[in-house]
Amino acid sequence: MPSYTAPTKDMDFILHNVLKVSEQDTPGYADLDRDFTSAILEEAGKLASEVLAPLNSVGDTEGCVLENGVVRTPTGFKDAFEQVKAGGWTGIDLPEEYGGQNMPYIMYTAVGETSSAANQAFTMYQGLTHGAASAILAHGSEEQKTTYLPKMTSCEWTGTMNLTEPHCGTDLGLMRTKAVPQDDGSFKISGQKIFISAGEHDMADNIIHLVLAKIPGGPEGIKGVSLFIVPKFMVNEDGSLGARNGASCGKIEEKMGIHGNSTCVMNYDEATGYLLGEEHKGMRAMFTMMNEARIGVGMQGLAQAEVAYQNALEYAKDRLQGRAVTGDENPDGPADPLIVHPDIRRNLLDQKSFVEGGRAFLLWGSQMIDQSHRGGDEAAEGLVSLLTPIIKGFLTDEGYDMTVQAQQVYGGHGYIEEWGMSQFTRDARIAMIYEGANGVQALDLVGRKLAQDGGKHVMAFFDLVKSFIKENEGNEALKADFLDPLKEASKHLQAAGMYFMQNGMKNPNAALAGSYDFMHLFGHVCLGLMWAQMGKAAMDAVENGEGDTAFYKTKIATGRYYMKRRLPATSMHLTRIESGADTVMELEAEAF
Amino acid sequence: MPSYTAPTKDMDFILHNVLKVSEQDTPGYADLDRDFTSAILEEAGKLASEVLAPLNSVGDTEGCVLENGVVRTPTGFKDAFEQVKAGGWTGIDLPEEYGGQNMPYIMYTAVGETSSAANQAFTMYQGLTHGAASAILAHGSEEQKTTYLPKMTSCEWTGTMNLTEPHCGTDLGLMRTKAVPQDDGSFKISGQKIFISAGEHDMADNIIHLVLAKIPGGPEGIKGVSLFIVPKFMVNEDGSLGARNGASCGKIEEKMGIHGNSTCVMNYDEATGYLLGEEHKGMRAMFTMMNEARIGVGMQGLAQAEVAYQNALEYAKDRLQGRAVTGDENPDGPADPLIVHPDIRRNLLDQKSFVEGGRAFLLWGSQMIDQSHRGGDEAAEGLVSLLTPIIKGFLTDEGYDMTVQAQQVYGGHGYIEEWGMSQFTRDARIAMIYEGANGVQALDLVGRKLAQDGGKHVMAFFDLVKSFIKENEGNEALKADFLDPLKEASKHLQAAGMYFMQNGMKNPNAALAGSYDFMHLFGHVCLGLMWAQMGKAAMDAVENGEGDTAFYKTKIATGRYYMKRRLPATSMHLTRIESGADTVMELEAEAF
Repeated sequence: MPSYTAPTKDMDFILHNVLKVSEQDTPGYADLDRDFTSAILEEAGKLASEVLAPLNSVGDTEGCVLENGVVRTPTGFKDAFEQVKAGGWTGIDLPEEYGGQNMPYIMYTAVGETSSAANQAFTMYQGLTHGAASAILAHGSEEQKTTYLPKMTSCEWTGTMNLTEPHCGTDLGLMRTKAVPQDDGSFKISGQKIFISAGEHDMADNIIHLVLAKIPGGPEGIKGVSLFIVPKFMVNEDGSLGARNGASCGKIEEKMGIHGNSTCVMNYDEATGYLLGEEHKGMRAMFTMMNEARIGVGMQGLAQAEVAYQNALEYAKDRLQGRAVTGDENPDGPADPLIVHPDIRRNLLDQKSFVEGGRAFLLWGSQMIDQSHRGGDEAAEGLVSLLTPIIKGFLTDEGYDMTVQAQQVYGGHGYIEEWGMSQFTRDARIAMIYEGANGVQALDLVGRKLAQDGGKHVMAFFDLVKSFIKENEGNEALKADFLDPLKEASKHLQAAGMYFMQNGMKNPNAALAGSYDFMHLFGHVCLGLMWAQMGKAAMDAVENGEGDTAFYKTKIATGRYYMKRRLPATSMHLTRIESGADTVMELEAEAF
Repeated sequence: MPSYTAPTKDMDFILHNVLKVSEQDTPGYADLDRDFTSAILEEAGKLASEVLAPLNSVGDTEGCVLENGVVRTPTGFKDAFEQVKAGGWTGIDLPEEYGGQNMPYIMYTAVGETSSAANQAFTMYQGLTHGAASAILAHGSEEQKTTYLPKMTSCEWTGTMNLTEPHCGTDLGLMRTKAVPQDDGSFKISGQKIFISAGEHDMADNIIHLVLAKIPGGPEGIKGVSLFIVPKFMVNEDGSLGARNGASCGKIEEKMGIHGNSTCVMNYDEATGYLLGEEHKGMRAMFTMMNEARIGVGMQGLAQAEVAYQNALEYAKDRLQGRAVTGDENPDGPADPLIVHPDIRRNLLDQKSFVEGGRAFLLWGSQMIDQSHRGGDEAAEGLVSLLTPIIKGFLTDEGYDMTVQAQQVYGGHGYIEEWGMSQFTRDARIAMIYEGANGVQALDLVGRKLAQDGGKHVMAFFDLVKSFIKENEGNEALKADFLDPLKEASKHLQAAGMYFMQNGMKNPNAALAGSYDFMHLFGHVCLGLMWAQMGKAAMDAVENGEGDTAFYKTKIATGRYYMKRRLPATSMHLTRIESGADTVMELEAEAF
């Protein structure tokens, strides 16, 4: 049975030694001193390891069951959800006026990593609610906000997002769900939505569905899509619950993983809905939430990699198998622990250097969300908008690969469900798909974000890398181990961008054929930058005699591994990108 | 519901245009003319797509059930197995004197790919039997051969391999199962074995377990391990079945995939066993089977990638989503098919170029097995022994990754079990683990095979690459698109080998820390060589006007993709290898 311990020390290192959050002038950041963040993260970590983690395999084994229209969640989920609600964990970053705690989004992300690592399927019930509440917060009328937000902040009511239909996922312009206007200003929503996470369940008094639909007579395609609030139970004026609305779960999907979350086919049969935001501006309303939602999914990829790594590491220390090639390290035992073997270490260090670098990337992105939303910082908004598809696509691709590597450490036991490693892999797999499949993230990055605002944001990224290198070149150890490799990798990224600029205009396929490699190339440079910053922070801490020297030295060694062993992937991605579109586009579809 | 069509045309292309099997002087190869191999592969393919493929998801959903010591296989498995037996497919390459058809191993591999792609879990029942029969064939007494081989060739009796115990898998020297000699020359076997595929089931009259165990008083560790034949039912002198032996299934494991195969915990309680081969030479007896068994697993990795690719391709052609960036390609439809999108093509071509290159590699390896076993060719034996860990490790790693990519083409539907793509991934996962986890393959490659016989075999590989390049340099198209990239990649491989030679002697960790990258680097060079040979064969076929020009041109284009887009990974692997052991070995275990 796997276990989970929240990496609070690592999180605090990033928050305070690297991002120096409490020194930032972003509203709310002054409160984030080390004592405060440590206390929050410790409590969240305790809940995650003691309450949520033990239910992870229960959720996987039992799954959700639909009977007579009612969905039963796995044993223990409801109790655990009550504990999460009671602790006030559901509204960490939501406004105080609706019962939230108004903490910065960066704290929501850090706390979210702990619960998602412990139990992804469970955490999604709250995560979807948070997404729906954010949409109402951003686009709802005052009445809608006061009607829904207090209950959604507390998760007494949960939320869902309804986008996909059987014949369309990415291409929502093909949508068929209809919203017919009624005399009282409401709409009758009819249609079928699929892949609706937490679409129906037994852990909340009401479920607030946000549904994309088309108002007949509106513009064709994606420009005619509007967003609606469709409550499971109608809400009376006094806030009490009324009649059941025409929204029902037709089926629960059998999935590869996240069995503890009810993935529903939702049928809307003249259900009463209320326009959220403007008519035909539904996609725009969704997109304002998109950065946060996608960063949240990137977090999931990282979280599964973290918990898988923790368990693989324990196994590698415990399991005795074979002898170190350089001489017995456990001479009194029948064999040495797995961790003496170089290839097991290579495997573990791939994981360790990814999760620690990825976490810094994730928290940096979250900080920029705060700078944008709380501080009105347009440069931060532009940069995080550029980096969001990378946070989502790169962290979930790599996160998944790392769960596969963690499983491999267990040998045959990694394939047996009882050991729990398979579940991490199966659960992590979805994050590469939902909130925009990773190919769509790559397309968004190269096709939209790169050239946005005249390429200003990618230039800002390069400036950031350059100035960090320049400021720290005097530090010889940092230069050799961190800055030089970062500079090299950053050159590859620039060359790739240049290739797109020179070729993409006359042949868009030349850019798009390299989009996936570009996303990964960019991801590695981001993690390279994070490791350079962490390397510096750790060296500073050692020099300043800040406590746990062993911790900081391990940080430096892990960073060196990333720069030496992982970052060189950038050169391969560049070569692929520069090979252009010819070999990709040459074959006719029939010739495949 | 996914489907499968055997890639017989591709197989024939490799067998005849590339390997030119019927021109080889290896015994049995003269029979392999195109008509013959086509007929065999067509029939095998028909059985695979019509009988085995439809049972694939049945096996996954139902799994195997243990009740009162009896294992029930999924609905339809027994009938299908009878059809496989009736068609004579179980003994294709086994000797005629025991009822086999004595075809070369290369045909066994090609046929095996079709059944494994259609239904891996099902095909394993026969595959394990084949492995056990091969061991008896190689090491059994005449009496043992006549007792067991006819029934095992026909699969009236199936076989198993019992190596792993709860506390040891890779390190079999720790084994605890005991074999106590009896006065009649037999042994009493006691102990527990785990992960025994096809350990107990209802599709055969008897099960012949091959069990590794230690005879008390023998040498310590791995040198004291012997191999035993332990039948489920005792076999009387007249060949009829006698009493039940003390071998029983204690549990069926719940696994990530291959649910249709019964993975058993086997308990041996003073079971009667018969020594197979010499006392204390059990590992040696196992190892003579190892190349074939590992090539068989490499085949599985490839097979799952093939079937996943076929379905992803169909989906990419059918599913309408979005528009081509260069203008509508399906203007009368609501959207264009997925395959117009460059990144979908990149994804599909990764898969296509891998499976076709991998298949050539696999069949070339199988040909060398024939040259060695049938032709007594020691050079072939040495080379295939070197390449076996790569066939196993590289084809299963990449094969798995390709099933993941295939799943991704389906978007959300790829995560839903109903569509079948998840099963390909889950089934493919085991191949990276069993028959020696891929890290062990890398260790075998770098720690043993590379330097074997004074490095003669790796030199032979380089000679082969060099002479192919030299012979064909006059072909300009081949040179630019295939030979030059192959030469470059081959240089990376040589540099890596050189690095190991220069550093591995004084610090074995310097080599072993790069072993996994070396396995992949070598794998890419092998596929590069295969593609260069296929490119040449296809160009020759076009020049000679041999029929289906479109087929050959597609082959060339697919090869160009591999050389441009996949092969450049060699440079990254070399960089990692040359970074040495420092960052890998630096941290103490406690510091992780």
